[in-house]
Amino acid sequence: MSTSLPASMPAICKLNDAPGLNFCQDVPVPEPGPRDVLVAVTHAGICGTDRHIYEWDAWSRNRVKLGITTGHEFVGRVVAVGEATQRIEVGQRVSAEGHIGCGFCEACRTGNGHICETVDILGIDCNGCFAPFISVPETNIWPVHPEIPNKVAAVFDPLGNAVHTVMAAGVSGKTVLITGVGIIGLMAVTVAKAAGATRIFVTDVDPRRLELAMKLGAEQSFDARQPWVDKLRQTCRGGPQVLLEMSGHATAIRHGLEALHNGGRAALLGIPADEVKLDLSELIIFRGATVLGINGRKMFETWYQMENLILSEQLELDSIITHQIDMKDFETGFAMMQSGEAIKVVMKIPQSEGEACQTVNSTSEQLS
Amino acid sequence: MSTSLPASMPAICKLNDAPGLNFCQDVPVPEPGPRDVLVAVTHAGICGTDRHIYEWDAWSRNRVKLGITTGHEFVGRVVAVGEATQRIEVGQRVSAEGHIGCGFCEACRTGNGHICETVDILGIDCNGCFAPFISVPETNIWPVHPEIPNKVAAVFDPLGNAVHTVMAAGVSGKTVLITGVGIIGLMAVTVAKAAGATRIFVTDVDPRRLELAMKLGAEQSFDARQPWVDKLRQTCRGGPQVLLEMSGHATAIRHGLEALHNGGRAALLGIPADEVKLDLSELIIFRGATVLGINGRKMFETWYQMENLILSEQLELDSIITHQIDMKDFETGFAMMQSGEAIKVVMKIPQSEGEACQTVNSTSEQLS
Amino acid sequence: MSTSLPASMPAICKLNDAPGLNFCQDVPVPEPGPRDVLVAVTHAGICGTDRHIYEWDAWSRNRVKLGITTGHEFVGRVVAVGEATQRIEVGQRVSAEGHIGCGFCEACRTGNGHICETVDILGIDCNGCFAPFISVPETNIWPVHPEIPNKVAAVFDPLGNAVHTVMAAGVSGKTVLITGVGIIGLMAVTVAKAAGATRIFVTDVDPRRLELAMKLGAEQSFDARQPWVDKLRQTCRGGPQVLLEMSGHATAIRHGLEALHNGGRAALLGIPADEVKLDLSELIIFRGATVLGINGRKMFETWYQMENLILSEQLELDSIITHQIDMKDFETGFAMMQSGEAIKVVMKIPQSEGEACQTVNSTSEQLS
Amino acid sequence: MSTSLPASMPAICKLNDAPGLNFCQDVPVPEPGPRDVLVAVTHAGICGTDRHIYEWDAWSRNRVKLGITTGHEFVGRVVAVGEATQRIEVGQRVSAEGHIGCGFCEACRTGNGHICETVDILGIDCNGCFAPFISVPETNIWPVHPEIPNKVAAVFDPLGNAVHTVMAAGVSGKTVLITGVGIIGLMAVTVAKAAGATRIFVTDVDPRRLELAMKLGAEQSFDARQPWVDKLRQTCRGGPQVLLEMSGHATAIRHGLEALHNGGRAALLGIPADEVKLDLSELIIFRGATVLGINGRKMFETWYQMENLILSEQLELDSIITHQIDMKDFETGFAMMQSGEAIKVVMKIPQSEGEACQTVNSTSEQLS
Repeated sequence: MSTSLPASMPAICKLNDAPGLNFCQDVPVPEPGPRDVLVAVTHAGICGTDRHIYEWDAWSRNRVKLGITTGHEFVGRVVAVGEATQRIEVGQRVSAEGHIGCGFCEACRTGNGHICETVDILGIDCNGCFAPFISVPETNIWPVHPEIPNKVAAVFDPLGNAVHTVMAAGVSGKTVLITGVGIIGLMAVTVAKAAGATRIFVTDVDPRRLELAMKLGAEQSFDARQPWVDKLRQTCRGGPQVLLEMSGHATAIRHGLEALHNGGRAALLGIPADEVKLDLSELIIFRGATVLGINGRKMFETWYQMENLILSEQLELDSIITHQIDMKDFETGFAMMQSGEAIKVVMKIPQSEGEACQTVNSTSEQLS
Repeated sequence: MSTSLPASMPAICKLNDAPGLNFCQDVPVPEPGPRDVLVAVTHAGICGTDRHIYEWDAWSRNRVKLGITTGHEFVGRVVAVGEATQRIEVGQRVSAEGHIGCGFCEACRTGNGHICETVDILGIDCNGCFAPFISVPETNIWPVHPEIPNKVAAVFDPLGNAVHTVMAAGVSGKTVLITGVGIIGLMAVTVAKAAGATRIFVTDVDPRRLELAMKLGAEQSFDARQPWVDKLRQTCRGGPQVLLEMSGHATAIRHGLEALHNGGRAALLGIPADEVKLDLSELIIFRGATVLGINGRKMFETWYQMENLILSEQLELDSIITHQIDMKDFETGFAMMQSGEAIKVVMKIPQSEGEACQTVNSTSEQLS
Repeated sequence: MSTSLPASMPAICKLNDAPGLNFCQDVPVPEPGPRDVLVAVTHAGICGTDRHIYEWDAWSRNRVKLGITTGHEFVGRVVAVGEATQRIEVGQRVSAEGHIGCGFCEACRTGNGHICETVDILGIDCNGCFAPFISVPETNIWPVHPEIPNKVAAVFDPLGNAVHTVMAAGVSGKTVLITGVGIIGLMAVTVAKAAGATRIFVTDVDPRRLELAMKLGAEQSFDARQPWVDKLRQTCRGGPQVLLEMSGHATAIRHGLEALHNGGRAALLGIPADEVKLDLSELIIFRGATVLGINGRKMFETWYQMENLILSEQLELDSIITHQIDMKDFETGFAMMQSGEAIKVVMKIPQSEGEACQTVNSTSEQLS
Repeated sequence: MSTSLPASMPAICKLNDAPGLNFCQDVPVPEPGPRDVLVAVTHAGICGTDRHIYEWDAWSRNRVKLGITTGHEFVGRVVAVGEATQRIEVGQRVSAEGHIGCGFCEACRTGNGHICETVDILGIDCNGCFAPFISVPETNIWPVHPEIPNKVAAVFDPLGNAVHTVMAAGVSGKTVLITGVGIIGLMAVTVAKAAGATRIFVTDVDPRRLELAMKLGAEQSFDARQPWVDKLRQTCRGGPQVLLEMSGHATAIRHGLEALHNGGRAALLGIPADEVKLDLSELIIFRGATVLGINGRKMFETWYQMENLILSEQLELDSIITHQIDMKDFETGFAMMQSGEAIKVVMKIPQSEGEACQTVNSTSEQLS
């Protein structure tokens, strides 16, 4: 490994069993194992999951390992590779899939590592990317196409969620309803449009988000707190053919399924906090509906689809990635997300002294 | 139409808003419309749905039209055809799809008439087959292959449910769990085996049914009232790849989904009486599961699949069709189903006087 | 039927075993059968197939019944319905599927009437639409959405070919090569773009067509007479994921398959005049390619997809339908198609005297 | 690595640009790299590909690297693992996928490593398994289920071809034609039967193979040199729904496609030596047929399917693996395959002196 790397670095960590995150100054720079790659992170996205960890909700308290560096969406440049790596080289601009599958179970060996039963997730189960350096298994590395700007490459992870949901549901030539237009829901609007949806309808409780969804290509938006199912079924003869459920709210799930066309397909990505009561007979069985549980991204089918879609220049991501801030201002980032002022926030990660730093700086012009 | 047809006939009808069915003596023989076919029924199956109507449960009270002749599973011989029919001829041995779609909606025009929004069902919305004659639209008629015995042709409807469920789920080369082995669940065991399931597991509360399921090809059976999910997941590494839910019980649905392999497919045919509470996050979303609502049979894709399967001689139906009785003994039939003594009961329908009667009698030897 | 209909009408017929078509003045107005619908045709498209019949090539000589009225792409208004029809009413604006399936074979009963083994085609096996009136089975009628202009409704048939090809291949999120951009190939460009193709490449020998393909959304065009396969495989890393073969030329088929990405899908719509020699090992087997034979349109799945796509306003058809002429000028139409001056030509069909005529005229404003 | 391994070993190699193979005595035992696993081979199958190499046909001359140890189907026991391996342990009984993908291209990263453009194949591009030791990348290793006997585990590779072909075509509930019942064709008969084919028809020129196919579950066999297409289409109304082409003969491909049901699916595994002339219009396009190129096995979806099928005890492989011989008698093995006396021949591989040898011997009882 290069001798010019610093021994320690700043990092945003989760130290305490309480809300908030900690800006630590002297976290050890990770040592990549023989099959790992060390990446100098230049940009990292703040995910809704990071906000859960920040707010320390029930899910986070049960799931997140205290002491870790947080964050799992990023782009950077390779600064060192383990001795048993095969293809990835120092200097490559890369992002990474944040799900680290075991590599040997049936899911992992059939292109479904995203549902490996013993998956580890960066920034949740092991150290993440809210720091100048991250170590990642080489098999998780995704070389970034030179035409893709850093701020987009920094959000491959949630964009991949949107792409996986849209592609799994199959929207080509179909009418689509998206319930919940937070970060991933908004991404799903632009992805569904690029992927061939003929008409897109959206619901949410936040008028700013609904407005942005319309700008991104939705035909009609509905306030989720008002009755909307019958209106939509009339507008869209017999209901939309596809439902992309992005909110995780029980009412949205029920209404979304109620609105669905007979024989339609519903993809569920939003994660309900509690059990949901459903009239399975009316909503699913008699209608011949198909319901797809969506988790993560397909490794790496979704990534290729995502790259194709981005390079087609049909995705409108600039209005979704509303803010770029410095890593040290992460508190502001979370606050803007909480207030609804920001949609997607990308942090610029400062480089430590030395060669690695310079390597990375030389590419900073690529940021759009 | 032939002049030899009688003017009236006996029929098992639903006359009163109360439990039970009525054996009526002077029901008018139906007059086929220009596009309809009149069939002299020789054998009719008693369906679980008929039992619901007999017991007059909540569903029946809301759904069934009083005054109708009941029954929707049958085989018989064509005795008259409307003047605008096209292919079906007097004398053909036929069964019929019991869902009468509108023929012009998107579902009907794309091979999905079973989920037509304005579908009528024989014996529920209009007169059925528990009588010597039934009039059916020609487009619903299914000519019966000469090698298929009458008692099997009389139960195409529920067998079609089983076939549609199995084929929609896709069992070829896969491990399969069937929760609930009533009539259709038992049929699903033999169908899944013929369709290429590698291992079949079943749950139910009735030991006689579990025993029959084992005889039909299941590898292991579980008493649904005892804990079984962990055992099954161990036996069947990571859980079965396919769930066929045939019971409609909330607990079976929950446990079945819990047992399912990551990335598995669940086909729901059993109809829950009430809403079901589900942990969608754990059971569907994180697992990347697919849930299919199954209704009726595909018209007529399922029928061709069913015919192929029957002719392959790999279905074991004799031990499922446990009893054949005379139409006048229908009360006994319902009683045997209620007690669990019978699984599937087929009624022989007596013919009225005249030529039609003779035509039909001449084929009675075909009954296996 | 209305008494106001004329007894005879002008029609473009195929009378002689020689090139050319005949403009006949006294062709009997067809009498609809009990299940048929009589349509007063207002606009009819000239198909490549009509040109084959006009030029009386080998295929036509073997296939077309002499004496018939030609044409199979049209829109018009219902002026009479047979007494056993069910839904279609006098006054409705309609088009029709030109493949008349038997209605009772496996293909017809499973939503695949387009590959019925005994299919009849309007204007080839029976009287077509190059005349003021055509009789069509009610089950073939397609009610036209009020927002769709007549000139588009007149070309549903070839547009349906393009839609069926694109949807069968599956272009959403994928890179696409279209070999041959005649009428249907050009339609496929705009359809593929609307259906979510990320990048579209085209080949042809006619620079005007290639130019139009670029205008419709192709990213790069290739002169089919120059070497292009290696260039395309470089531009489009590993080759396009989807091939839509629209030319029927042996060389295009071979080169198209050669260009295809490993594991790609090729949909063949163009009809080769002769046998084609293929290196199946290199082009299909070792590559794990999938080749789909495409015929007609799915009845009626493709029609619903087509309507969805048109209503989404993402199809650019105006520059493909280059000319509208009067029926009597059909010779000019064929000449313009032969010279390459015209792409798609739509004929306006004059109405005979009487009420029917007036009914139809009242809608002429809808023509865009 | 264990010090008890010998430095050299006997091996069956391809040394000269001429027919035949060489039994060499002092081939170096391979040294596994950091990500590789060294396996002590106990049983190896002789593949049709090995016979091509033995006979030194045109394909072999162009493809095979002189000097290599041949063979790619085997089972054995792990005797050493590289220092950067992750899961596989010394002592495990294993087989291996013979396609060594690059691991980083789109095919490899989406579960399609079998069609990696830079794939290396054991025994063709690098040293194979006709020797007491073979080194294989850990990611290619397949741990063998304890219930599977060695002689079956030794032929996973061709059995995987059969399983991949059958599963890709989709035979569940369908009628199937298999053209060519050599080793893989015969395996396809038993696999198709287990996977749910309703009726199986076979063609070949060798009456012994046709007879064995009947024993394995085919319903009817045809001598490929006599006319058979019309007979089959009559027996199997409209033709079989699925074609599995295993012969690579141009005539078989043409006749197989001719026999196919409209809308059917054909999977091509047999590799034609030359280009094939096809009437694409009649055989593929008008029929709406789907043609699938099949190569290798899906890594590792096919392997899981194969294991499921074997464990279901529905595969009849004993009558296909007709002979087991000692490695030194390989000439006899090839001769028996050439004469048609043998179908599948498995060689027992002798172990060299030392600990590895003993480890392996201790499991020899598992051979069925």
